[in-house]
Amino acid sequence: MKPTLAFVGVGRMGANMARRLKEQGYAVTAVYDRHTPSAQELATEIGAKACPELAAVTAAADIIFTVVTDDAAQRAVFAASDSLLAGAAGKTFVNCATISPAVHVEIEAAAARAGAHSLEACMASSIPQARNGTLYLMCGGHRAVFDTLRPVLTELSDAGKLLRYIGPAGTAGQVKALVNMVMNINTAGLAEGLGLGAALGLDPAMLLEVFAQTGANSRVVATDGQDMINRDHACYFSAAHAAKDSGIALSLGTEKGLSLPLAAATKAQYDRLVTLGLGLIDKSGIAELTFPGRAGTSGK
Amino acid sequence: MKPTLAFVGVGRMGANMARRLKEQGYAVTAVYDRHTPSAQELATEIGAKACPELAAVTAAADIIFTVVTDDAAQRAVFAASDSLLAGAAGKTFVNCATISPAVHVEIEAAAARAGAHSLEACMASSIPQARNGTLYLMCGGHRAVFDTLRPVLTELSDAGKLLRYIGPAGTAGQVKALVNMVMNINTAGLAEGLGLGAALGLDPAMLLEVFAQTGANSRVVATDGQDMINRDHACYFSAAHAAKDSGIALSLGTEKGLSLPLAAATKAQYDRLVTLGLGLIDKSGIAELTFPGRAGTSGK
Repeated sequence: MKPTLAFVGVGRMGANMARRLKEQGYAVTAVYDRHTPSAQELATEIGAKACPELAAVTAAADIIFTVVTDDAAQRAVFAASDSLLAGAAGKTFVNCATISPAVHVEIEAAAARAGAHSLEACMASSIPQARNGTLYLMCGGHRAVFDTLRPVLTELSDAGKLLRYIGPAGTAGQVKALVNMVMNINTAGLAEGLGLGAALGLDPAMLLEVFAQTGANSRVVATDGQDMINRDHACYFSAAHAAKDSGIALSLGTEKGLSLPLAAATKAQYDRLVTLGLGLIDKSGIAELTFPGRAGTSGK
Repeated sequence: MKPTLAFVGVGRMGANMARRLKEQGYAVTAVYDRHTPSAQELATEIGAKACPELAAVTAAADIIFTVVTDDAAQRAVFAASDSLLAGAAGKTFVNCATISPAVHVEIEAAAARAGAHSLEACMASSIPQARNGTLYLMCGGHRAVFDTLRPVLTELSDAGKLLRYIGPAGTAGQVKALVNMVMNINTAGLAEGLGLGAALGLDPAMLLEVFAQTGANSRVVATDGQDMINRDHACYFSAAHAAKDSGIALSLGTEKGLSLPLAAATKAQYDRLVTLGLGLIDKSGIAELTFPGRAGTSGK
């Protein structure tokens, strides 16, 4: 019999993962969100119980996915007076947030003290992939915990083709931070190239096509280039999240005494977007800082 | 009958273009290089004349390719007392160097005053592509000049599949500067990601593979990633050239009043490599500044 599942944090990522797993025949018994209406709405849709308390979530399922926003939110659900760890013996937590790697290590230790298991499962994909079960999933923790969870994680990761075991707790978060750091740098660089091209009066469609055919090519040329030109910044991955993730990587660099000027310049740009009140637009919105005549520029 | 060809500047790019076109049935009648032995060696190999004077090059061919290093070298061959423009009426110049776009405009005007034609043909590829005739060629100048040159340019650009007419003189150079600016940013960012991964003790092969499979992917992941890990910086495109090209783009940005912090941080890194005496290693050598314990870092 399949294990029962619960979800803590049902924003667009968490809700889509729950929908996908329900579709694949899993019972999603309980959902929780700080924003109560989100939990109630999803619960109604998929036939789960919207729990007002975290302890009830743990009681209701074998495997509890947490898909929260940041370090503070991740710590809160495991450490508050109402905690997922209450009565957690034998339960397994799968933590999907992009948070500081050290927090994954903390949570694994806290879960172990409660007789529970913990795995970090970092997602290097976005909302449609959550819905379709084609997430790139990088996992960190004990190998045996990963092996136990493999069937359910397989349903989220294109039949397991995009599922990777990275190493001990924290290592998947490190890799995720590096992926996002490099992606954000490429995004910031693309925005500068397209912005300068626009200032020079070059045809943006031609320029984007040349970038795609030359050494300037990158994944973000395909995912963000047209949106930068069209100013279509509907949010898949927010500027505020980009700032947070680049910040995690920069902190790791500081711990290791490494100078990372590109990562620092990129974080400064995303911080500037947040300061301009644009933190909730998509990461492609960094182009608002580099195209002449847009919000964040003073180009002539 | 095919036009006769000459080459000015026969470093590895120019020499390989000459070899390729000779193979395709063109007579390469004359070659010239500031470094006389390079010209003599190639002349012997392909049955051309090594000219000690530029005027003799123009006299010897219908189409003269210039493949020189920078703005000063480009201006010198057209403006020195011994100049390619002497007796140039009816000749056509194809200028392949990555130089400031404004210099292409200057040369086109000077050629016109001498009764000659000029086309900029900027190459977004490297040495093997020159040898195999698979260069990505972006052309700027009068459309009629481009059309006349199409047969010979086709032999250099994968049967013309990689041949593009961009616009008036200077525009191809602008696009080339933007391509290299973005490529250099991606390269500098990749070096930071892999360097921080190494500092964290992550398996570099795993990390590179994850980059290639996620939003961190870029052309330079494939072309430079393994070289960064292996410290294999045999030169295809030198750090000094990267510094120069990022500088061209930054100057264009300054003219337009745009702030380009990623491009600036990247140029500063390449300038630092040059200062460390590493300007002649490949652009992948920027990893020497970001991996712990290497030349340019003080990581612990």
